Amino acid sequence: MNANQAITKKALAAESASIVLAAVSESDKNAALEAVGAALESQTGRIVKANRKDLDAAGASNLPQPLVKRLVLDNKKISRLRDGIAGLVSLEAGTGRVLFSIELDEGLELRKVRCPIGVVAVIFESRPDALVQISCLCLKSGNAVLLKGGSEARHTNAVLAEVIAEAACRAPVPVGWLQLLEDRRDVTALLSLDEHVDLVIPRGSKEFVRHIMDNTKIPVLGHADGICSVYVDSGADLKMAVDIAVDSKCQYPAVCNAVETLLVDEAVAADFLPSVAKALREKGVRLAGCARTAAIIDVEPATELHWHTEYLDLALSVRVVDGLEAAIAHINRYGSHHTDTIVTGDSAKAERFMDMVDSANVFWNCSTRFSDGFRYGLGAEVGISTNKIHARGPVGLDGLSIYKWKLYGRGQTVAGYVDGAKSFKHRIIP
Amino acid sequence: MNANQAITKKALAAESASIVLAAVSESDKNAALEAVGAALESQTGRIVKANRKDLDAAGASNLPQPLVKRLVLDNKKISRLRDGIAGLVSLEAGTGRVLFSIELDEGLELRKVRCPIGVVAVIFESRPDALVQISCLCLKSGNAVLLKGGSEARHTNAVLAEVIAEAACRAPVPVGWLQLLEDRRDVTALLSLDEHVDLVIPRGSKEFVRHIMDNTKIPVLGHADGICSVYVDSGADLKMAVDIAVDSKCQYPAVCNAVETLLVDEAVAADFLPSVAKALREKGVRLAGCARTAAIIDVEPATELHWHTEYLDLALSVRVVDGLEAAIAHINRYGSHHTDTIVTGDSAKAERFMDMVDSANVFWNCSTRFSDGFRYGLGAEVGISTNKIHARGPVGLDGLSIYKWKLYGRGQTVAGYVDGAKSFKHRIIP
Repeated sequence: MNANQAITKKALAAESASIVLAAVSESDKNAALEAVGAALESQTGRIVKANRKDLDAAGASNLPQPLVKRLVLDNKKISRLRDGIAGLVSLEAGTGRVLFSIELDEGLELRKVRCPIGVVAVIFESRPDALVQISCLCLKSGNAVLLKGGSEARHTNAVLAEVIAEAACRAPVPVGWLQLLEDRRDVTALLSLDEHVDLVIPRGSKEFVRHIMDNTKIPVLGHADGICSVYVDSGADLKMAVDIAVDSKCQYPAVCNAVETLLVDEAVAADFLPSVAKALREKGVRLAGCARTAAIIDVEPATELHWHTEYLDLALSVRVVDGLEAAIAHINRYGSHHTDTIVTGDSAKAERFMDMVDSANVFWNCSTRFSDGFRYGLGAEVGISTNKIHARGPVGLDGLSIYKWKLYGRGQTVAGYVDGAKSFKHRIIP
Repeated sequence: MNANQAITKKALAAESASIVLAAVSESDKNAALEAVGAALESQTGRIVKANRKDLDAAGASNLPQPLVKRLVLDNKKISRLRDGIAGLVSLEAGTGRVLFSIELDEGLELRKVRCPIGVVAVIFESRPDALVQISCLCLKSGNAVLLKGGSEARHTNAVLAEVIAEAACRAPVPVGWLQLLEDRRDVTALLSLDEHVDLVIPRGSKEFVRHIMDNTKIPVLGHADGICSVYVDSGADLKMAVDIAVDSKCQYPAVCNAVETLLVDEAVAADFLPSVAKALREKGVRLAGCARTAAIIDVEPATELHWHTEYLDLALSVRVVDGLEAAIAHINRYGSHHTDTIVTGDSAKAERFMDMVDSANVFWNCSTRFSDGFRYGLGAEVGISTNKIHARGPVGLDGLSIYKWKLYGRGQTVAGYVDGAKSFKHRIIP
């Protein structure tokens, strides 16, 4: 069996399971999650042993230290994962919830009902905890899942997937709902399976995410770039603006919600730029700026390319703009529709910014780094989306569900409504 | 300027307008809609005159009579369109509505707020009334729209687009929100503009819709096929089942929600098939059936191809199946995820069917022909979606909107929450 056939077989198994899973009750899904939590505990030794193999291989191949740290799955992390599962059990998944209900005519009732999407594929990086979080989110929301983790974690992932799949099926959950893909060729094969896979969520480098987006007809949820901006308005508290700029840039520069561009209203540029430059430089941030910025502080000259750059590092592009509308225009043109903040004391300008900046997350007087499912109180997330449809920002249980229309009748036909013998009531049921 | 440049220019104009439109209040959008309604009245003479040109051309080119009928836009139809606009004004668009709100910490409030998608392109067939309905739905939901109508209606569409765009801009609505595309080459050019167009909704033949789906990176909302099924369960009222089968097939066979496949539980096949065959044949329906069907009634032998066939005509595929699970498996394999009905007296089987059939619309004891935005009480629709994400079934104002996350702070930074000095409250605001 070649990679294509093997992956098609896995996708078909997931698809079959997804049909059955759509009719599994919330309490049975919770029982499955509890069984997964218990199995993670009873199998901790086996999981840690598999993780040791991956860590040994990482050591032998000189994997950079931050990646090794992400690769570790020890007793403490497993215990935290079990807490996460317990939290997920206590959440309401919402599957089966009636979102809207209307009586079309006597004895003819329409309900818009929340339901799972079907088969979701998630491709993620080295951190093996992600496998547990993602598969549990999919189970809770009633979706079958195809998972592909980083090759550095292959032994850990194989054991985790086996433990989770096996444990869940002790509750009335269909076999096959979780499928593990094993290498890059599997991902290539997966991308052509738009008949059987309903959604792909890729997490990783922007090149990788863009490659997925460009090579499949399956809908893709995620983000390639994280070009976030902070705009400091003329009405800003400049001390607050310095704090927000520094936190947005320096608190964790390697992530998608770190700021990459600082926009400054020309009315406050002369006051603000020297102080923010000093604070940023103390943290080791390199600055590139437009000509108007360079007239005030010492910066590397910025070109068009800088406005398009996601540094993911201690570097920042700075531009002086002619007020709110120019800031909005810059962000909509160069930003990546991820997260953008305005610092201002003027609520009307803040609302205008938040309405007109076309991004998933629009903030007023706070750091771009708040853009995150945990910080939002949504629990775990499968990723952050900059899509314009379905789900935006951090994607949790909500983004893993959709709805269907259920119509309950007593033998009604349409002919009578067309020829005028009958007419619709359309009474919304509260 | 070639077609590509001209369409890029229109898309950019629509994109700029969409940014401003996202901040226009509901009352201003309603004022614009009222201005459109008034302009349709004052310009009726001009519209009817343009329509006359299209009708003359249709006569000269021997356009089939049903298409000519759809092409007509007379005083009566214009008056009905104005009633539709008045209805739309009275609806709540929901843009700006807070869907969820949570206090992350003191003075740090997150709101999930409904907002427009941005730039929507709709490609539709000959009926010029559709231009009015679609553009008004887009305006109400705050989206800029690129429209391409049927070439048969070109004169009518040109006048309608001009009248609507001009009238709307008398209210505080940005110029450029409505752009008319003029020929097929414009559509080809449009499909490459994924940077500027957020959603394409194609309406027309399945070949056309599939062509769009296969040739763009822009998300596409719609349906190519309408292979709908009626399943007659062992627990069905067989008289009711005949009525539903006949209505689903014959009431209007040329449309996507007409039934194409009749599935019959083997337990009732011998009783049911002769009576349904008689009723269908009286309406002129040709039948193709599986071997088990052919053992009971006289039918053309059905092959695998028949289960994949959308007749859009007085023809029907018939298959005897081994009960509920086999019916569900058939529909999920051969259907087009559009609309499927079960006829049964058994509510547990009905619920199982509705949960496990992976279609946008799942019905119990009623005709597939109810699957329609007007019949659902949703008002006008821009189309019917068989997508698995974003919007399913008839798509109205809801499917034309999305949400963004707005975070309101007082200067908060993330560092304190990461180093443990502060912690999140996550208090949901009711």
